[in-house]
Amino acid sequence: MNTSEAPEIRNIAIIGLGLLGASLGMSLRGQKLNRLGWTRRPEVCTWAQKNNVIDETGELEYILKKADLTVLCIPIPQIMNFIKTYRNCWRPGSIVTDIGSVKAVIVNCGEKELQPLGVNFVGSHPMAGTEKTGPYAAFEALYNNAEVFVIRTDNTSAAAFQKVSDFWESIQTKVVEIGVKEHDVLVAHTSHISHILALSLTEAVLDCPEAERKLRFSGCATGFRDTSRITSSSPQMWREIIENNQPAVLEVVKEFEKRWLHLCELIESKQYDKLQSEFAKGKNLRDRWINYKNTEHDCNW
Amino acid sequence: MNTSEAPEIRNIAIIGLGLLGASLGMSLRGQKLNRLGWTRRPEVCTWAQKNNVIDETGELEYILKKADLTVLCIPIPQIMNFIKTYRNCWRPGSIVTDIGSVKAVIVNCGEKELQPLGVNFVGSHPMAGTEKTGPYAAFEALYNNAEVFVIRTDNTSAAAFQKVSDFWESIQTKVVEIGVKEHDVLVAHTSHISHILALSLTEAVLDCPEAERKLRFSGCATGFRDTSRITSSSPQMWREIIENNQPAVLEVVKEFEKRWLHLCELIESKQYDKLQSEFAKGKNLRDRWINYKNTEHDCNW
Repeated sequence: MNTSEAPEIRNIAIIGLGLLGASLGMSLRGQKLNRLGWTRRPEVCTWAQKNNVIDETGELEYILKKADLTVLCIPIPQIMNFIKTYRNCWRPGSIVTDIGSVKAVIVNCGEKELQPLGVNFVGSHPMAGTEKTGPYAAFEALYNNAEVFVIRTDNTSAAAFQKVSDFWESIQTKVVEIGVKEHDVLVAHTSHISHILALSLTEAVLDCPEAERKLRFSGCATGFRDTSRITSSSPQMWREIIENNQPAVLEVVKEFEKRWLHLCELIESKQYDKLQSEFAKGKNLRDRWINYKNTEHDCNW
Repeated sequence: MNTSEAPEIRNIAIIGLGLLGASLGMSLRGQKLNRLGWTRRPEVCTWAQKNNVIDETGELEYILKKADLTVLCIPIPQIMNFIKTYRNCWRPGSIVTDIGSVKAVIVNCGEKELQPLGVNFVGSHPMAGTEKTGPYAAFEALYNNAEVFVIRTDNTSAAAFQKVSDFWESIQTKVVEIGVKEHDVLVAHTSHISHILALSLTEAVLDCPEAERKLRFSGCATGFRDTSRITSSSPQMWREIIENNQPAVLEVVKEFEKRWLHLCELIESKQYDKLQSEFAKGKNLRDRWINYKNTEHDCNW
């Protein structure tokens, strides 16, 4: 497929109007685009139209047929089911992307189901979200300055890749091109492992006899609030993410344990100078990262 | 000692004008108090007077003699050194407290050195702070809605305990009475363990070959930002806290590892329904805690 076959994007379909989908609609306000939106609950479609989150809703078949670009903003298993169920609804030449947190399973499915029909699938993963869920947690700035991974495989159409990248950049994100496997290993490090950690921490601190809980509640302050924040995320979503990226997650589990055990050994053997050096190393690494986000991405963190 | 011997607090000495000391001075603005301040660097004393952080500075001996209540806002080892060095400067009947994150070592030292001289020592620990340090990171609202642990031991004067509690409550904090050992075990859970975790995470994610680091930087977003935030804290301070609370920290290390290993086993053996139940349990516990802080403490988190 060459560039001329990829349509200019005038009609964009947002499937799923939860935190990610509804925020996407909001972030597209003011662009010369027709935002078609669909979600299971009709009252959410009504809310989305009333609040300038989408311009139009309707039957799924109508929306998918009309869309130049479809963004699937639904949970990982649903993305794959949706593609299989509605594969014949899209126009040949149109482009489908998604916002799923793992990419190998989704991109494999999308390419397998859609490419034979002449529909382009390009996987995306915007590094945006909060611990909240649902349309009413959405806000226009969710994607501001976020990095968006856009997947290029051997099967990816260069024109479709470019269109998807341009689309993400139109809402103030930074596109990073990456391969599927590389992506899944990367986010196991930078995102998935944190959820297992935050959960273990929350349980170690708050899963205590009821009589002690009030005191534990008192002892938790802003440090715990932030370290544990993502424990308040959707249990189902995180189960699905880890389920669909298990080998990479287990790899990072080992990497984390190596660091953890070393620090615990330093504490056990009272090697506090070395412990302090580790704290200094960690601070330096994190401060460099914060500086990178603030200077190169205007994050103001 | 009975209540009548504890002086009304008119002169308060803040020793150390870092994040905690300078913010304390700011939070006392508008009270009928003379805020005496001292810190090693003269330029910080000048800055603090100019910016209405303290009312008066001067020689240490003068300040300690004048103070009805002294709050030691310096690092843990310095608190103990300070008490030993200046023990003869305080007026009998006056009260000394501190803001150190561990209490057994400090309270033991304070009582041993000061009680024989008729000076009251009552340990405090406000659950307030950020990952930043130094006077210029201070802000007036730092203590708002924070919980402050105030230590009662067999040697604590009831009148001095009341004065210290009243003082903390005068700056919109919530006082929680607690014993020394109970305190140190509690904060090992609710605070200290998080710092070892956040450091291990930061190292596992960012301590990689330089060639990969740019991509790791890209992959880290708001989840990592918050889970790792406290890694940017002072390395020396956290070394000192762990060094002075080692047995309790190691106890919580074991508690964390129990939870962590169980979760990893569920992932390894693909028991995803059980994993989801754990995520749900953690979310429920944390959401209950957030609700407690918001409804009982007006935190608006």
